[in-house]
Amino acid sequence: MSSTNPPLASKLSGLQSSAIRDLLKLTTRAEIISLAGGLPDAELMPRERIAKAAEGALSGTGALQYTESPGWAPLRAVLAERESARLGRVVPVDEVFVTHGSQQALSLLSEVLLDPGALVVVEDPAYVGALQVFRAAGARIVAVPLDAEGMRIDALRELLARGERPAVVHTVSNFHNPGGVTMSPRRRGELAELAEAHGFWVIEDDPYGELWFDSPAPAPVATYSRNVIRLSSASKIIAPTLRVGWMVAPDRVCRAVELLKQGADLCGSALTQQIAADLLADETWLTAHVDTVRTTYSTRAKALVHAVRTAFGDRITCTDATGGMFVWADFADGTDTGALLPHALNEGVAYVPGSAFAVDGAYRESMRMCFTTSDASTLEQAIDRLARAHARAAG
Amino acid sequence: MSSTNPPLASKLSGLQSSAIRDLLKLTTRAEIISLAGGLPDAELMPRERIAKAAEGALSGTGALQYTESPGWAPLRAVLAERESARLGRVVPVDEVFVTHGSQQALSLLSEVLLDPGALVVVEDPAYVGALQVFRAAGARIVAVPLDAEGMRIDALRELLARGERPAVVHTVSNFHNPGGVTMSPRRRGELAELAEAHGFWVIEDDPYGELWFDSPAPAPVATYSRNVIRLSSASKIIAPTLRVGWMVAPDRVCRAVELLKQGADLCGSALTQQIAADLLADETWLTAHVDTVRTTYSTRAKALVHAVRTAFGDRITCTDATGGMFVWADFADGTDTGALLPHALNEGVAYVPGSAFAVDGAYRESMRMCFTTSDASTLEQAIDRLARAHARAAG
Repeated sequence: MSSTNPPLASKLSGLQSSAIRDLLKLTTRAEIISLAGGLPDAELMPRERIAKAAEGALSGTGALQYTESPGWAPLRAVLAERESARLGRVVPVDEVFVTHGSQQALSLLSEVLLDPGALVVVEDPAYVGALQVFRAAGARIVAVPLDAEGMRIDALRELLARGERPAVVHTVSNFHNPGGVTMSPRRRGELAELAEAHGFWVIEDDPYGELWFDSPAPAPVATYSRNVIRLSSASKIIAPTLRVGWMVAPDRVCRAVELLKQGADLCGSALTQQIAADLLADETWLTAHVDTVRTTYSTRAKALVHAVRTAFGDRITCTDATGGMFVWADFADGTDTGALLPHALNEGVAYVPGSAFAVDGAYRESMRMCFTTSDASTLEQAIDRLARAHARAAG
Repeated sequence: MSSTNPPLASKLSGLQSSAIRDLLKLTTRAEIISLAGGLPDAELMPRERIAKAAEGALSGTGALQYTESPGWAPLRAVLAERESARLGRVVPVDEVFVTHGSQQALSLLSEVLLDPGALVVVEDPAYVGALQVFRAAGARIVAVPLDAEGMRIDALRELLARGERPAVVHTVSNFHNPGGVTMSPRRRGELAELAEAHGFWVIEDDPYGELWFDSPAPAPVATYSRNVIRLSSASKIIAPTLRVGWMVAPDRVCRAVELLKQGADLCGSALTQQIAADLLADETWLTAHVDTVRTTYSTRAKALVHAVRTAFGDRITCTDATGGMFVWADFADGTDTGALLPHALNEGVAYVPGSAFAVDGAYRESMRMCFTTSDASTLEQAIDRLARAHARAAG
């Protein structure tokens, strides 16, 4: 028997595991309060409602077989109805495609929309799951910075004026991961206008839009142009275990994604799609459920932001946490969050250094904190620990 | 608003929906007995056992969250134990990777093992789901014919002697789809030897191995060499809805697949993986369940083969149906199965013409028949109809 196996494809040498995943492995010690994760709170997930839906789906043989590649038809119908309300136009079922979480939509779209070497514009700091698929597709990636109103459209305009011709612009429009900000309505309109003037696709990646705290997220970028492909997911409002994400896109994009989905994994799970359809169609229940999640996260977010501002004053600026799952903070006193991390872990608190999300910016003095899985007093304790670590690192 | 959207990637022009899928859309009329599908029988799937497992998995919050990219650890442990027994060696958990059906393993492996332009050897007739991913990966595909002992290793040897250097050889080793044959033990050893001598990977795609009728399938090709990556699935023995396939491969292949799985869809469903683990670990129940499936399919297969031989005599040769889901038949009287199909549909029976599976061979006088979803008398009726269609087409 040979001692070494045949070689692997050469492109693999360029791929790396996400720095965040590697970090998370180090922060699972029980005594550490982790703000590093990016998970919704399993305690808030509707376990009993899911169990009831599973029982219903399994009362006949309809949930056992392979299902259609674009998704179980009644689930697509429910999603089409919800998206019609969200987008203010009738969304036909053929423009709705169910994916294995939004991540699969990103992955299949990167194959459908990008030739090798195509230009993709992302936000900086970036959602690393998007960076990963665009890099794997051989795209050239250029980053546009975020500010408090989301993607800086002036910077995108400059890129275009320099003659850059993106195939795709990717944005997490609401409650950005990791940046915490939401794109303003004015910028949404401007982005859509540029997409039509310059003939590029916008991927509006919106897993957090329903997790608003004080006021609903603005109308989606997809309301402004059919060049916008809208992605969303049941993972953050119901449960990741369903692996139900969806895409709203022109029919020919959906049909191209369908061809690739057949090769990628044939189809999703009829069982989890039937569960998702049941819960998403149960409007009264869903509204109350999402309201509970939203209210709980809001309390946690506000406790975290208050604790950060109280402990650090003007040595830190952080986002207001108006929704979603993350707060982004920038140290104003030159603190290097990569160097601070070992001190923080020693004190029993973890976060993700900003550099993990950097494309062009270095974000060495920034960090992402997730507030979803700890209650207010635990979050306050986490920031106490962070303040102690900061004092030690400085001293 | 612009009336046309931006362009799609240029490679899409080369991709087509599978001819079988398109055909299946035409054969769902209620009055047609379809031998064209390729689905296991939902009536035989263990609905109540799945429902019980779902209830158990949902009695706590452990089945709601994202799970690990390589699969829920206890499921991998169960699979490692089963595969250790199958392969006659201790298979470490790190060499077991859970995928969204075997199809996802094929798709991710095509990225992990193939540089663009790499040579892939497939069997002719071929499993079209494999062809689809190898084509999408930009591989050069060369086909080696099947005979009653499976892949013709002499033809592979000739290829190698001509200086061809495959990166991957793909085989459906047991109860071939569509060919119905099983690779003999001698050829398994020879294939493994060639893989080691010439430094190529073998992908042993084995979704049907447990569906043997009279005697168990031979030891897997993977018992002969570590150059063999073994794929299997719960879809045919339990239910497709779980979307649980798995791969047994060297650690570095699994780690490369893990990187790509993160980008492809993050992870599988914790719920369906926990259900699969529960059922696969319940050995007494599983043995009895698979035995029922096997016995039922065996009865159907034999009824089909008997009916074909009775109706067509020496105008047809067909495989013996020793396991799996398919019978492959070749007309000896020059019948063109593509031309026969409209007559067959008129008489109320459907099958897939051999040309749908052809790589190098044309298989114009061949067809694939699936025997899983009809009982014996329905299958006999189907062959009556086929014989009538054949008589009309000739007359």
